[in-house]
Amino acid sequence: MAKKEKLSLVCFSGDFDKALAAFTLATGAAASGREVHMFFTFWGLNILKKDFGRKWIGKALLDRFFNFLMGGRNNLPLSRLNFGGLSPKLMTGMMKANNVATLEELIEAAKELDVKMVACEMAMHILGITKDDLIDEVQDVVGVVTFLNTSRDAQVMFI
Amino acid sequence: MAKKEKLSLVCFSGDFDKALAAFTLATGAAASGREVHMFFTFWGLNILKKDFGRKWIGKALLDRFFNFLMGGRNNLPLSRLNFGGLSPKLMTGMMKANNVATLEELIEAAKELDVKMVACEMAMHILGITKDDLIDEVQDVVGVVTFLNTSRDAQVMFI
Amino acid sequence: MAKKEKLSLVCFSGDFDKALAAFTLATGAAASGREVHMFFTFWGLNILKKDFGRKWIGKALLDRFFNFLMGGRNNLPLSRLNFGGLSPKLMTGMMKANNVATLEELIEAAKELDVKMVACEMAMHILGITKDDLIDEVQDVVGVVTFLNTSRDAQVMFI
Repeated sequence: MAKKEKLSLVCFSGDFDKALAAFTLATGAAASGREVHMFFTFWGLNILKKDFGRKWIGKALLDRFFNFLMGGRNNLPLSRLNFGGLSPKLMTGMMKANNVATLEELIEAAKELDVKMVACEMAMHILGITKDDLIDEVQDVVGVVTFLNTSRDAQVMFI
Repeated sequence: MAKKEKLSLVCFSGDFDKALAAFTLATGAAASGREVHMFFTFWGLNILKKDFGRKWIGKALLDRFFNFLMGGRNNLPLSRLNFGGLSPKLMTGMMKANNVATLEELIEAAKELDVKMVACEMAMHILGITKDDLIDEVQDVVGVVTFLNTSRDAQVMFI
Repeated sequence: MAKKEKLSLVCFSGDFDKALAAFTLATGAAASGREVHMFFTFWGLNILKKDFGRKWIGKALLDRFFNFLMGGRNNLPLSRLNFGGLSPKLMTGMMKANNVATLEELIEAAKELDVKMVACEMAMHILGITKDDLIDEVQDVVGVVTFLNTSRDAQVMFI
């Protein structure tokens, strides 16, 4: 058992609560000595946008339209009981009140724990997002096969 | 192949249909000789609340508010076409009509098949839920690292 | 490492975007030499219905009602920002504009790459769907234990 354990997460969801779950799993796994890879695709890319608010990203009209509607990290909805975006803010308050790490703190911790974060090439093509639109923590833009190869012998979850 | 196969499920969702899927996988795996662990977090905790209906759980106002709105096992919504909670009831009828085990029966079977059920410490902190609010089948309240360690060499799914 | 790597997907979701993700993972894995199994259950069965539009499938009234409302491949909603079914059509346009394979093309590729597709017996019972209602690419109707046994040593994801 000398081999390092690995955890690989496909971060498909752009929901606030699922982003919390993904980064909690990632940081917990990394802090306990695992090698962790996060592959962000589709709505999950919204978590990584450099601009945390709504921004017209992309060239084509539809790309710009979808990116604006999806928004960035500050616009991640709760998967239920979102109340027009109020709930993620309330929940962050509840996390602070209970001394639980917020999403911002978890992402910062992931970076410090050397969690690898890569973005899905195909989803970026579809949505007209470029690497420049994403935060610097994103180390690479890769295809799904590269991700699968990186995840050999890893436990994988689709979130 | 002397080693026992393992299946570990992160039960994040509190949707009726996904709870059905989780317990179907869990009981199927356990019945065929696998060691099964279910880690309930976030909305998934609603499945395990002692009170099956809506109840004001928690001390802080927001905790109480969210717990009431989320409700318990009788309030799990269908992830689509929920029709204000009517569909889970209709679907349970469809399951009975087709001799398929209902959610209640699946949870009972999981218990008898020695499926391990634990609750996520962090999610309980955020939502102000204590072990006393959960059914007795919940064996422990643990952190994510404990769950990951228990799930070594297991196939894992995030539901 | 002479043993063939395996990927097994539980395709629970009937969302357009998640169907895209499932078939992208499946075809990528198969194209890079992996043995791939897809187990379609619940809403995921809608992707495989022979009739791509809405159809009254089933005998019991409720079965017929749910199947009509869920519809087939042409009715898969986007998990967010669906806009009454407009978005999947817009997104298919964005995929074509960016030379990304559409869902139709991915399903066709999966077939050619020998991806195994099976349907969940229990979900079909509940919803009153028979094998005749599904496309010919569906090789078998199996229970969850059969799927788990087929997926021994596989990386698994629940989508």
